[in-house]
Amino acid sequence: MTSYDPSNIFAKILRGEIPSHKVYEDEHVVAILDIMPQQPGHTLVVPKLASRNLLDADPAVLGAAIVAVQRLARAVKAAFAADGVIINQFNESAAGQTVFHLHFHVIPRHDDIPMKHHARGFAPAEDLAAAAAKIRAALAAT
Amino acid sequence: MTSYDPSNIFAKILRGEIPSHKVYEDEHVVAILDIMPQQPGHTLVVPKLASRNLLDADPAVLGAAIVAVQRLARAVKAAFAADGVIINQFNESAAGQTVFHLHFHVIPRHDDIPMKHHARGFAPAEDLAAAAAKIRAALAAT
Repeated sequence: MTSYDPSNIFAKILRGEIPSHKVYEDEHVVAILDIMPQQPGHTLVVPKLASRNLLDADPAVLGAAIVAVQRLARAVKAAFAADGVIINQFNESAAGQTVFHLHFHVIPRHDDIPMKHHARGFAPAEDLAAAAAKIRAALAAT
Repeated sequence: MTSYDPSNIFAKILRGEIPSHKVYEDEHVVAILDIMPQQPGHTLVVPKLASRNLLDADPAVLGAAIVAVQRLARAVKAAFAADGVIINQFNESAAGQTVFHLHFHVIPRHDDIPMKHHARGFAPAEDLAAAAAKIRAALAAT
């Protein structure tokens, strides 16, 4: 296993070096919008404590992260009136991991809308801002 | 949200009413092979405490489950000399959920092998038995 490289984009977001569309934060995680969403509302739960992925993560971090994933899954489902939610978590390039800091994808799904591929095409900033506002409102309502 | 139906196949496996290729068990979860694997070694982590999916799960169950997912992810990666591991967790039909008892997919990935689609085609029982033996051996070695 390659070791953790703190120059990855999520580490920069956690350090406040680059902006993000943050929808949630607690002691252990932040949740931000994926800027290449597979569906509107595609959210990433990113633990603050660094690990390359799930394979080298602290189990306590995983426990905190999955509870945040549940919270965000409920919120994106409500915010986008979704029929379901996919949780994806990719470990290493062979599995589709593109940023090497542990993260969970939370993706709202609708019965009649095909899902886009992973990591293709940036969403307009105004669309991301609108999606983030919806998710924050759904979180506040729970 | 539809409520939990105890006639689902994982509930039957947990009650011992039908057989499975079990590779791991602790107080909170069992891990069994998916009988329609997307790759050899495709494993399911199934919490014992019933919930329909992640959306209605007890957070404590999720914490125990994700730690088991990590353990199985490491084991299937070792057992199949995989380059990576995908974790998938589907909530509701729109998201690809086909059995309505919470479960996490743990799928080894290799750089040069395309992944099969979800829930298509049964694996021969002898292949599953051989895969289960490899995973049990990898778990025992950690």
